[in-house]
Amino acid sequence: MSDPKFKLNGRVWIETGDEKILGHGRVELLERIQASGSIRQAALQMKMSYKQAWDLVNHMNDHFGQPLIISQRGGKGGGNAVVTDHGLKVISQFHLLNQKLQEFLKENTKTLNL
Amino acid sequence: MSDPKFKLNGRVWIETGDEKILGHGRVELLERIQASGSIRQAALQMKMSYKQAWDLVNHMNDHFGQPLIISQRGGKGGGNAVVTDHGLKVISQFHLLNQKLQEFLKENTKTLNL
Repeated sequence: MSDPKFKLNGRVWIETGDEKILGHGRVELLERIQASGSIRQAALQMKMSYKQAWDLVNHMNDHFGQPLIISQRGGKGGGNAVVTDHGLKVISQFHLLNQKLQEFLKENTKTLNL
Repeated sequence: MSDPKFKLNGRVWIETGDEKILGHGRVELLERIQASGSIRQAALQMKMSYKQAWDLVNHMNDHFGQPLIISQRGGKGGGNAVVTDHGLKVISQFHLLNQKLQEFLKENTKTLNL
């Protein structure tokens, strides 16, 4: 049995053509956009620039075959943004994968023998 | 069935007290020290400073309960370093965990449905 002080941790992300297109940070961005209806607000909450957030949104929209976010830029109140049904499905799939990873990590922490 | 263009990727690492103590980079460092007999050579190969490499080695030695590396600093030829039996065991356990992770990722890539 392992010394219980050691713990296995990890992360998963989704790639296409060896390029990362979705991980924890982007899922958090999608969820914050969904909650606030605003890319600007989500960016502020995550302490990233508006441009960074837009770059990530565009990158996801370009690589998932269909948009995850639909938005109007600028205008009164700074535009608004909505996570599409496909975006919601992607978020939910990521959480499921992450949950499976957590089980994997827990299981393998038990067998750690360092 | 998923669109085959999406792929799940990931990493695992070992923590103690929420602090990372071993991951891909450190395992590579240990293996390069083992192969070259020299922390300086391993650092050069990995494009890190000698100090960085030493900090990592000391951090691992301090957190694994027993040393993973035994070294003589300086001296003729710049000292030498050896990975201990315990270090070899840790390397081997990490590779095993990583292999299990690769199986997990492969299995879950199959179920990706984005």
